[in-house]
This record gives sequence, structure tokens and C-alpha cells, in this order.
Amino acid sequence: MNYEKKGLGMAVFASHSALQLVLGGMEQGVRTALFGPEDRLELYRRFPALSCELVRYAGTETLDGLADEGFVLVPNGSVVEYVRPENLFRTKIKVFGSRALLGIEADQRRKMELLRKAGIPTPKEFSTPWLVDRPVIVKFPGARGGMDYEVTDDPQRISDLQIWALERRIVKGPSEVMIQEYLIGTTVYAHYFHSPIHNRTEITGFDIRYESDVDGLRRAPVSIAMRRSPTFTVVGNIPVFPRERLLETFLEYGERFVETVKREAGGKFAGPFCLECVVDSGLNVFAFEFSGRIVAGTNVYSVHGSPYLALYFGRPMTVGERVALELKTAAETGSLDEVLT
Amino acid sequence: MNYEKKGLGMAVFASHSALQLVLGGMEQGVRTALFGPEDRLELYRRFPALSCELVRYAGTETLDGLADEGFVLVPNGSVVEYVRPENLFRTKIKVFGSRALLGIEADQRRKMELLRKAGIPTPKEFSTPWLVDRPVIVKFPGARGGMDYEVTDDPQRISDLQIWALERRIVKGPSEVMIQEYLIGTTVYAHYFHSPIHNRTEITGFDIRYESDVDGLRRAPVSIAMRRSPTFTVVGNIPVFPRERLLETFLEYGERFVETVKREAGGKFAGPFCLECVVDSGLNVFAFEFSGRIVAGTNVYSVHGSPYLALYFGRPMTVGERVALELKTAAETGSLDEVLT
Amino acid sequence: MNYEKKGLGMAVFASHSALQLVLGGMEQGVRTALFGPEDRLELYRRFPALSCELVRYAGTETLDGLADEGFVLVPNGSVVEYVRPENLFRTKIKVFGSRALLGIEADQRRKMELLRKAGIPTPKEFSTPWLVDRPVIVKFPGARGGMDYEVTDDPQRISDLQIWALERRIVKGPSEVMIQEYLIGTTVYAHYFHSPIHNRTEITGFDIRYESDVDGLRRAPVSIAMRRSPTFTVVGNIPVFPRERLLETFLEYGERFVETVKREAGGKFAGPFCLECVVDSGLNVFAFEFSGRIVAGTNVYSVHGSPYLALYFGRPMTVGERVALELKTAAETGSLDEVLT
Repeated sequence: MNYEKKGLGMAVFASHSALQLVLGGMEQGVRTALFGPEDRLELYRRFPALSCELVRYAGTETLDGLADEGFVLVPNGSVVEYVRPENLFRTKIKVFGSRALLGIEADQRRKMELLRKAGIPTPKEFSTPWLVDRPVIVKFPGARGGMDYEVTDDPQRISDLQIWALERRIVKGPSEVMIQEYLIGTTVYAHYFHSPIHNRTEITGFDIRYESDVDGLRRAPVSIAMRRSPTFTVVGNIPVFPRERLLETFLEYGERFVETVKREAGGKFAGPFCLECVVDSGLNVFAFEFSGRIVAGTNVYSVHGSPYLALYFGRPMTVGERVALELKTAAETGSLDEVLT
Repeated sequence: MNYEKKGLGMAVFASHSALQLVLGGMEQGVRTALFGPEDRLELYRRFPALSCELVRYAGTETLDGLADEGFVLVPNGSVVEYVRPENLFRTKIKVFGSRALLGIEADQRRKMELLRKAGIPTPKEFSTPWLVDRPVIVKFPGARGGMDYEVTDDPQRISDLQIWALERRIVKGPSEVMIQEYLIGTTVYAHYFHSPIHNRTEITGFDIRYESDVDGLRRAPVSIAMRRSPTFTVVGNIPVFPRERLLETFLEYGERFVETVKREAGGKFAGPFCLECVVDSGLNVFAFEFSGRIVAGTNVYSVHGSPYLALYFGRPMTVGERVALELKTAAETGSLDEVLT
Repeated sequence: MNYEKKGLGMAVFASHSALQLVLGGMEQGVRTALFGPEDRLELYRRFPALSCELVRYAGTETLDGLADEGFVLVPNGSVVEYVRPENLFRTKIKVFGSRALLGIEADQRRKMELLRKAGIPTPKEFSTPWLVDRPVIVKFPGARGGMDYEVTDDPQRISDLQIWALERRIVKGPSEVMIQEYLIGTTVYAHYFHSPIHNRTEITGFDIRYESDVDGLRRAPVSIAMRRSPTFTVVGNIPVFPRERLLETFLEYGERFVETVKREAGGKFAGPFCLECVVDSGLNVFAFEFSGRIVAGTNVYSVHGSPYLALYFGRPMTVGERVALELKTAAETGSLDEVLT
């Protein structure tokens, strides 16, 4: 690596939270390279105030080349989807955060197991449609943004969905389709940043996902809505500010998550992550998923910065800038090894 | 016009997005006059940090007078509703943006036709209730903020609504009542600013409308909600941050819209506009309406400014300030003719 | 009191809107003490940028001690719930705002009566389940954050809920359970600050409550949602920006409310309050509750500040800072008696 020669840089897949990361890097004086297929790069040429390199992605050798130029990979949801975790493991580029965790994240079973090991309450899972006795959400693997997820309490429908996923080669076996209890409550996506430099897990904010067509269907007259099954394609994110007393619970879950990742997935962890939660009417918090890297929900703080990060730094900061700050500080203090894998 | 004598000013109807425009003008050193009936002006006297003239509206001669004082009209939704497009065409005041487009906007048929000419996907329209084979939304003309819109798939009900609108003189013929396919998906209102000065169409942000009683009805128990038909009166706006990959689509639609307006409606266009969209579960984006001027959804960025405008100017900016900046720059560079009609 | 010796301070119960008040105090140079049970204080030790005293609450003598140290109580929803209004009246600590109003707020009947006396439209109330002829919401006393509220139009169910509340000792008699018309419309929580120093009632912003499980239930398939009755536990708050023309109505209601509080509840009032409103499809605004102190909905403006306060002060400001500013100004101008009770 040539961090010294050209200075450390952040390589980011050109989508998802790329704008936020470029702007955050600019704020901290850390250069950014966006990589992706040519048609994805086009968007970023339209914004004159953005300063970053644009690199056409032509396979993992592109990442190797970026590594040679002093870049480390800041993974987002799109890179996991587009480059695939197995390819990420083959490149020599260093990953900000945990390469191992990205692998676990891509496997629904191991993902939920990690949450349970952390002592974080999770929804019940069913091994077969025929044991289902309550509403469940049927989920398919990969970071496809909730596409094709379905809520039902009908075992036959679940079985049909398993067959559909097999036929479409979305899964290799029916057990890869997760049948997860659908908890009735409000979703809250809790964002975190773990800093090895400060040796602490910070809360960076919260959002609600805005999903199609579930969030549109509920506006249709009941007679029309009842004939359709909602789908959960993420279209955007809405800011939400949870009750202050819930911060205790969210913070505790975040810290337990980090401890467990360190114990179960390679000894170290750094950077942004997200616990996807449901809060029920008794204010109990359950995590139904996690993301071991920055999520697009942090985009609600773009440019203006998260007020939660002001609790640590005395001023609002975006998660993009938070990443750049940790990387810069690690480089300056010779601690890059603590934040890269 | 006396722009030189007193400096250019923005005349704004006292409602809708007036606060944002006054504050934006103050930021850029462009004076503002709010005009409207006396009872509407009262509100603006309550805010000591606002600096603007307040002018009682007494017919189109008020606008002529403002023109003499160096003001141009920055049209908002309320001016279209209150002064009526036909009167706007009779005054000598110059309009920031496109006077012709305001006329098209007021006519539902021409409005949707313009979107189709721009190659922007739109919902299907039905010429008569008796051809309806899916959920539709029945819409009445004028910028009445969604008041009395109704969703149904019952031809008889649509026919009854046409008769109701005729009797109330909301329309002159049944064909003025638009019967538009009601797409199931999430609404996203995309805001834009077209700058002849920079020769580009900027994305300025996004919001979701908060409507009564549809957004309340969905919170009622199903047994109660199913006995009522939702209504769509806009009560407010909620911030939303769409997925980054959707920005490509939104930007493309915005650019095509501007090209089409220039071609079909008088050769030039400047300023804010909005594409009212639905995003379905396949992430396809449809526009079901447009506004050829600033919409109240941009108020979600009041004072703090839109993070999207930071992508062009390096700092957040409100749409109100963006308007003032374009006007000021046009005046300074002798290009007012490019932004006024 | 020893305001002179150590300077005036704000004592705040460690929950609800405490972060906002501490940060607001820091901004204005007014010190803050957070008090509460030990396990509630822990959270605030996690945020290095917070500067405040943390005081373990051991009964009303803790408040007396804080009074001796120059602190006044800035009441929030948690202090009403945790310390109980009757205890608040026994301590010698001065209250920013109206001690009398906190008593009225805790009594559902007197609360609604105050709104009616102010000429603010309210939902109909029913004295007995057997007169109910429309959807109602059944409410229990105390600031329990909407917990256990239920919407129904079934008199038998209402009667059962009264018995349940009696058995659980939530109420002493069935009449303490309020049976309030459930208006169909969008909720808007309007936030205000009354300043005796400036002799004006300021609008400080708006939010929507995000409640469990009602806001989750509406995302479930209709067949599942129809089997459950929604509950209303507040989980968080979402920003909303009402139509500009509604500001007139909201401002008028706020001013009438303050006049009525002064007339009916001890002659003076200062500080934050909230009118909990429903806006129907005709844009009529009804208040179904009020809070005579800061509400957590103002947390949506944390750190960044409310754009509405910029209309008075020329820059965004949080309600936490607004409180500190009024207290500081009152102390500096010898007017503390006007803002404390």
C-alpha cells in the first residue's frame, strides 16, 4: 500500500451512500474514488461540487489497482450486492471495517445467529412452513433491498415462495429462504459507528425505511389493499427521533453487537453498522436483521450531519465524515491496522 | 420596469412557500413583497426576523403596480389558485419561470400530455367511467391541494363524482374530471430547479405529502377504515431521502421535462418545478402530475437548506434562496430575459 | 435561591428531552443538572460532549437541594410521570413555566375543559360508553406516552376497558377513563414557546408521533391487521412541515391557549407547550390534548435548531436553547418572577 505516497483514500462503490462518503471525505481532506459500471458513474459527473475520482469497475483487478493507489474499501450495500462478498475476499484491497462480517451478513442464518449470540432479542424463526402459527415475513438472501419479501401466515403460500425462489435460482435450497416471525410494532433502524481509536460504540442516528409498495398500499382504500400482499422494496429513508429513554437500549445492543463480532468474527471491528429493529407497544426492542457496514438510512443526515454525533464531537457530523475522520486519525496515529481488515 | 432604480424584487403571494422565499431573498440581498388579502398578510407581521413589504392585493392592478416598482412575480401554488392563471396573463408583471407552463398546469389534460411528450412514464387515463378496470383516482381541476380527490374502482361512483363536480360548478363538463389509474407504490415528490444561467437542471430535493384524511385513516382500526373512502387534502410535507440509484432516474426525467417545456411551451423555462411521482416495487418511477413552479414540499428545507443543492454549490441552500440567486445573477449579467416570461 | 452566587441553572429530569435542554443550556452558557434514578443517569455519561451535573434523585429533598444550588426546574414529560405532579407542588424548587398547569395537564377532564375555554375546537367527549355513536379513543390518565389507549366504536369494549383500568388501579373511578371522539384526520403536534420577556407566543415547530403498534400495524396485510386493535405507545417523532396557511390557525390557537392559562391557572405562564391536533380533510384543526411543558417532539430539531424560531431570532434555535435564553434574559433583566412559579 502507498498510503504515504499519495495519502490514504476511500474507495466506494458508486451508489447507495457514495455521495455522503465523498462529501465526508472532502470535509476531512481524505480523497475518494468512486468505482462502478460506466452508467453508474455518470450521475456523479453531474454534481460540480463533488470532488472525487471516478473509476470504471472491470472486476476485482480494479480493486487491486485502487489498493496500489493507496485506497481502502469503504463497503456499502451496493458493493456487497454488485461485487459479491466472495469476490471481495479475493482482492488485496483492505476493507474499512470487518471483511468477515460482510460474509456473515450475506448469510441469513449466520446473521441471525450472531444477533442471538449478542443477547439481542430477535424474532422467532421457523425451519419449515408447516410449523408457522403466526404472521411471518419470508426473506430471500442477498442485499436486494427488501425486494420480493412477503408477509403471510399461510404455510402453503410460504411453501410456494420457496419453490419460486428455487426456480428463479435466488436460492439453492429451501432452507436459504428465511421464515421469520413478523413482529407487529414500529420499525426503527439504529445506526452506529464503532471506533477502535476512541474505544467506544457511538450512536449515529435513526431512520425509518420507506418501502414500496407497503407504504403506498396502506393508503389505498381497504377494499383494494386487502386484495394485495405488500412488498418491501426500499425506496428511501425518513428521519425519526426515538424517545430518549430508548437510547439506553439501543446503545446497549450496539455495544453487545460489537463485542460479539470481535469474539466471533476475527477479533476486530471498526466503522458503521446498523441494527434493524422493531419496537413493540411495550417498548421492547427486537433486531430482525443487521448490516455490518454503512446503510443508506444515514443519508438522512447528508451534509447537515447527525445531531447524535454532536453528543461525541460537539458538532453535527455525517457518518461519511465520521468514516473519513476515523481513517485519517488511524493513519496519523499509526493505528490503521486496528480499523482495516 | 425599474429594476435599476430600486433593484430587482420578488413579488410572492402571501402563503404556500412565502416564508421560504422571503428568507431566501434576505440571504441573497434580494427584496421581497408579499401580496394577498389583508387577512393573509397578518401572519407575516408576527415574525420579527422577516424583512419584506406587505401589499394588499386588490386585483391585477396590484401586480401592475408591483411591476412598476421593479418586482417580478415568483409564482407559487397559492397565486395560481387565488389570482387564477387567466388573470396572470393579463398583468404586465414579468413571471420568473414560464407563464405558459402555468396555463398548461391548470389544465389536467394538457398537463399529462406534456409529461407523455417528455417520455416520462405516467399512469393510464380513462376517458369514461365505464372503461375502468382497476383502481383509479378521480381528480378535479385547479390547485386545490388534493381536496375531494377520491380512489375507487367502481364506475358508478366515478360517474356520481362527475355529476357532483358539475353541480358544484367545479367543472364545466364531465371530461374535465380526470380518471387516472391509481398506481400502488410509494409517492415521492421530486423537486428541481432549472437554471438557464448554468444551463442545467438541478435536483433540489424530495418530500412526501402528508394528506388528510388518508394518512389518518390508515391508522384507524380496519373495521372503521373500511367504511370510509380516503380523501387527499394536503396538510403538510415530510422529508424523505430516496435511494441514491433513483437519483439517476429522477435527474433524467427532470431534464427531459425541461427540454419538452422549452419545445412545447414558448421556448424558455427557468426556476423551480416538481414531478409528483410514484415508485413501484420494481423501482419504476411514474409521474402522475407536475407543478411548473415552486411547491410547498421544498419547505422541508426551510432555513437549513437542501443538502442536494450542496452538490452544486458546496453548501446547503433553500429553494427560496436558489430563486433569489438565479434572479440576482441574471440581473447582474444582463440575462434577465432568459429567466423571465 | 442562590442564582447570584453560582448563576442560574436548569434542573431537568434525566430523560425525554434532557439532551436537548443540556445542549441548549451549553449554547447559552446556562448550566444544567440532570436528576433521576442512577440507571437513568448512566446514559448521559456516555456522551463526552455533554456538560452537565448528574444528580441521583432520592425524593423531593433532591429538588430542594437543587433549589439551594440555584437551579430552577424545567419540567418535561418524564418528571411529571416520575416525580408526580402532587410531589412537584411540595418542593421549594421554582418551576420554569406554570406549576398550576402541570396539575391541570394531569387531569384529563380539566385539561379538555381548559382547551374548550380557550375556544379551541376539541373532539366530542362521552360521559358513558352507552352513548357512544362513533369511533372513540379510550384514554387513561397520566403521562404514560399513549400506552394502552384504544380506538373502538363498541360500547361493551369501552366498558371492559374501564373495568380493566379499575382493576389495575390505573384509575380510581370509571369517569377517570376518558372516552373521546376519534377524529379521522392527520395528527399534527404543534409546539410553542410563550415568552413574557417578548410578550409573545412563538411557534417553535411541528412533529408527528410515531406510535407502536398503530404505525406498524398499518403495514401488515389487511387480513392480519383486522384481527388486532391498534395501540398508541409513542416510540419516536417524525418531522413535518404543515402548509403555510395553517400557521395562522396554529398561532391563533396558541395565543388563545396562553390567555386562557393566565386567566384560569394562576395569572402567569412562560415556556414551551404543545397542542396535540388533528387536521381534517377540510383543513379544520382540533386539539385533542395539550402538554403544558416541553414535549419530546421538539427533539426533531436537536442541535440543528428549529427553522420556525429563525422567524423570530434570525437563526434556527432548539427549544432547549430557547428555554435557556429566556431564563438567562429574565435573570439579567430582573424578570425571573415573570417566568417562574
